[in-house]
Amino acid sequence: MPETIPLGRYVWERIHQVGIDTIFGVPGDFNLQFLDYIFEVEGLKWVGNQNELNAAYAADGYARIKGVPGAFVTTHGVGELSAINGIAGSMSERVKVIHVVGQTTRAMQEKHMMIHHSIGHVPDHQVYNNASRGLRIDAAELWDVKTAPAEVDRVIRECFMQSGPVYIFLPLDLSAEHVDASLLSTPIDLSPKIDEAAQEKAVSAIKEALEAAKNPCVLIDALVQRFGAGEEARELVKSLKVPYCSSNMGKGIADETDEMCLGVYNGEISAPGVVSAWEASDLTVLLGYLPADTNSGGFSRSIDQQKTIYVNQFEVVVKGTSYGNTHLKPLLAALVKSLPSTPLHNISPPRLPAQPQPNDLDAKHVTHSWLWPQIEKFLQPGDVVIGETGTSVFGLCDIKFPEKTQFHAQIYYGSIGYATAATLGAEIARRELFGDSTRTVLITGDGSMALTIQEIGTMIKAGIKPVIFIINNAGYTIERMIWGAREKYNDIVPTRYSHLLPLFFHPSPEKSFHYAKTKDDLEKVLASPALKSPEHLQLIEMVMDKCDTPWKLGAQLAWRGESTKQYLKREGFVDVLGNWGLQDGRGGGEAVKWA
Amino acid sequence: MPETIPLGRYVWERIHQVGIDTIFGVPGDFNLQFLDYIFEVEGLKWVGNQNELNAAYAADGYARIKGVPGAFVTTHGVGELSAINGIAGSMSERVKVIHVVGQTTRAMQEKHMMIHHSIGHVPDHQVYNNASRGLRIDAAELWDVKTAPAEVDRVIRECFMQSGPVYIFLPLDLSAEHVDASLLSTPIDLSPKIDEAAQEKAVSAIKEALEAAKNPCVLIDALVQRFGAGEEARELVKSLKVPYCSSNMGKGIADETDEMCLGVYNGEISAPGVVSAWEASDLTVLLGYLPADTNSGGFSRSIDQQKTIYVNQFEVVVKGTSYGNTHLKPLLAALVKSLPSTPLHNISPPRLPAQPQPNDLDAKHVTHSWLWPQIEKFLQPGDVVIGETGTSVFGLCDIKFPEKTQFHAQIYYGSIGYATAATLGAEIARRELFGDSTRTVLITGDGSMALTIQEIGTMIKAGIKPVIFIINNAGYTIERMIWGAREKYNDIVPTRYSHLLPLFFHPSPEKSFHYAKTKDDLEKVLASPALKSPEHLQLIEMVMDKCDTPWKLGAQLAWRGESTKQYLKREGFVDVLGNWGLQDGRGGGEAVKWA
Repeated sequence: MPETIPLGRYVWERIHQVGIDTIFGVPGDFNLQFLDYIFEVEGLKWVGNQNELNAAYAADGYARIKGVPGAFVTTHGVGELSAINGIAGSMSERVKVIHVVGQTTRAMQEKHMMIHHSIGHVPDHQVYNNASRGLRIDAAELWDVKTAPAEVDRVIRECFMQSGPVYIFLPLDLSAEHVDASLLSTPIDLSPKIDEAAQEKAVSAIKEALEAAKNPCVLIDALVQRFGAGEEARELVKSLKVPYCSSNMGKGIADETDEMCLGVYNGEISAPGVVSAWEASDLTVLLGYLPADTNSGGFSRSIDQQKTIYVNQFEVVVKGTSYGNTHLKPLLAALVKSLPSTPLHNISPPRLPAQPQPNDLDAKHVTHSWLWPQIEKFLQPGDVVIGETGTSVFGLCDIKFPEKTQFHAQIYYGSIGYATAATLGAEIARRELFGDSTRTVLITGDGSMALTIQEIGTMIKAGIKPVIFIINNAGYTIERMIWGAREKYNDIVPTRYSHLLPLFFHPSPEKSFHYAKTKDDLEKVLASPALKSPEHLQLIEMVMDKCDTPWKLGAQLAWRGESTKQYLKREGFVDVLGNWGLQDGRGGGEAVKWA
Repeated sequence: MPETIPLGRYVWERIHQVGIDTIFGVPGDFNLQFLDYIFEVEGLKWVGNQNELNAAYAADGYARIKGVPGAFVTTHGVGELSAINGIAGSMSERVKVIHVVGQTTRAMQEKHMMIHHSIGHVPDHQVYNNASRGLRIDAAELWDVKTAPAEVDRVIRECFMQSGPVYIFLPLDLSAEHVDASLLSTPIDLSPKIDEAAQEKAVSAIKEALEAAKNPCVLIDALVQRFGAGEEARELVKSLKVPYCSSNMGKGIADETDEMCLGVYNGEISAPGVVSAWEASDLTVLLGYLPADTNSGGFSRSIDQQKTIYVNQFEVVVKGTSYGNTHLKPLLAALVKSLPSTPLHNISPPRLPAQPQPNDLDAKHVTHSWLWPQIEKFLQPGDVVIGETGTSVFGLCDIKFPEKTQFHAQIYYGSIGYATAATLGAEIARRELFGDSTRTVLITGDGSMALTIQEIGTMIKAGIKPVIFIINNAGYTIERMIWGAREKYNDIVPTRYSHLLPLFFHPSPEKSFHYAKTKDDLEKVLASPALKSPEHLQLIEMVMDKCDTPWKLGAQLAWRGESTKQYLKREGFVDVLGNWGLQDGRGGGEAVKWA
């Protein structure tokens, strides 16, 4: 390493140092020279995207799997704004992303020059920076080479500490100015500043509440994953040996095959027995709670503050009393450490009743009631599973994953199109971590696929091998269920997916494309070795009825009230469990039993 | 019409009243019910896009051709942010666009509910509205049904008056509240408030300067088109009978086949003779001037303030003296009216020297030096021509258009991908105006096409018939010329365009796809009746060398200085005119002669 290096290279070196091995993005006039430095960093790779929104999604997907930020680069204005919806999604879901923006030169900015990508006759080149202010954790607005390295370090740290998107704005001319290379030998401090006394107090309060409880129950939610505390959460439920469940967004963090696991507690819209098991508990422990409508069964979850512990990112609340200045991950680690080796409680494993039989079992075509159990069987331990806003995420949240499955979908922010581009990032991250030993499986719909379909091309060019299922049900089924079941605006552009792989020069497009209209078709596809350990990207088109839906989606809507139920019935949506599986408002009936 | 109508319908009725016949957009949870009202407005049509950025681009394209705003609708957060880069483009290029956003209900907003598409645990639902504040002309933030109709009217008026994008934010519940239908019987006032005295003063000053000049020259720029003053500008140059030219962005406004037309004055990077003709003038009249780098030959245009008249959107400047409070269109109309029936000057028509012969005439493959003259011959009077940021726009700005050609490209904002989706809107607007009597012709590159490629599907579904040329030169050639000629980041995902039409169920994909690798191939394609009056969308893939470029692009870069010239030479970019056509810095040599 030379004694001084360009600031541009410094940025990439720092990004690589914190565990990022791939940079996504799109080149542009104001980042080109700066892109060269990527190739000077040993071990850092470039994957160019087909557009900037897709780059943002890919970086987000990468971050979720790798546990470090995803990073992508765009150009001034046109690029950074194209990506802004991806940034807002990362902000909403607290995903670590570093968005590096190549800006116009400082001279151009100071002189308010009418450089292309600007607005007006005396343009303010920072107008795009302003647009993302409310949608990000922090930003390094680099201007002076003297202070720039410290600013870069600071926002990378903030990205980890607060878990969310940060920007690095780098004027093109500044990227070539040199900084002291020896700065790189001090790694960025990524450890939270722990207030030991505060943490101890919080741990004691939690322990005290646990000891006083007869049958605690733990709920694991999304922020556990975002703040890197998955391992600690798994340790906790193992040590406690109490029943535990997850939210939709918390799925995939803890082992669902464990006998103490209740699966997903999604309020009234939960599998049979889950609500009763939850309500039987006299102390519920909520880890990394994120109670959005789509993550709480439409706010139908019952939480009694007086019998609840919240372990939030920077705070613990025990039965209404707040203990501040804590950090999720170290706090959970300390809590686990403080627990006795013999569990405090001796609770029998829950025995959940079976789901009622769907009434469309006879169908020969692919139905939701049949599909999701097949997907459950299809998944392998260690798979990375990506779901999309729409029917697929409701189906995925209703099945049991094999151990070490990672599951991601944009359940709170819910920007359709996310899942396809996020799969690019997720699969690249998975490959960096696990090589060919596991798979990335995307299940999306035709409506969502359309928004970001070109990213299939990036996947093929990058030589990655996700297994991609597309539900082809002629439009936005989830929207049809909300309003306008038969309206034109819920129809999409018909797409013949058999042409998608050859469009992007897939090496074996015919062997890697699979089409299933019937259960028999799909059974054969699911059993094929090509999907078990794919040599190339696999694409499976599943033709499904536009009024068919996972029961959980129907139930969540029906739960809104009688008029929605009548609407769904009138428009002919398939209610496979009868009354949308909500007899007694409890996902279809019987209560939990204990072994 | 009933006595009262829902506010949602009121919005669409008003939008339709000002001349908009098609609404673009993407459905979402917070606009569905509101979309129904579109179908209640007689004559208003819905064209759903494949994503929201494409919808914004399509609305922009529609506006440019129709002369009224383009309108599109998105949903809260995810939709509106996806479109924001399109809005910024409309702002930069002063294109009238109405972006209607279906927001969460007022109750959800007031309670800061964690509804999907939000950010945080106590979300501010207006955070997305804040993001676009610096990127729009105005916004109607509707909340109270009593004041809402007036607000809607106000921003629609502002959209016309200031020519740029406006937002209408409509909480979902509010859209169903009723307003007095009789409000619709008073049309929105779209006429500027003219200060007759100020206008008269400005007209007199212009006339006086014209009378004092020996050989004035007029330059027509983009804002003439944006402020609807095309007809007046054409009248003006006809009445004056003096030499006139246009900027790149002003191309297509005035007739280029007229003997007084010099073509494009793009500073030093102009066709032979144009610079000398410009400099021979003792009074230059700049109409709707927009001197961005990309619209002024990289700021290489020579303007002497003491011999210049600016007719700007709201102001006239005569030789340094400003006359405020004017409006471009009525001012030009008044100026034309004030001119004598016999022209003030008697100037011979200019005779521009021919372009030097390109030195790659022998090539068998499709070259830029050969292509653009062929495109010139291919164009028909009345065609709508769309160019894309990249080589295509430099080629298009170098040819002479037949009369009544409309030309659009995002030359100032320069967001690649724009042109494809804008073509959807432009072709729909063209069809509304002219039916099958003219065509829309898009010329784009493979790099740009990738960003918004799915909108080809929307075109096919909508049954429109643009003729689309794709330059397949294996990546971002314009970026290669700036930096990183051989770098990986300038390579794109290889695409086999023959699969693009069947991917979206084109009715005759084989007959409508054309592939040209050689000049012979392309000559045959250009002569085919399918392209002359297309029955369906036509797609022409032209394979070109990645180091080939229109001379104007090379010249504009070479003009930066010797080191860029050396770079271009070293990397093997084809310099068909030798020294990039800039002997004496004047587009290749000889001066203008006068007939």
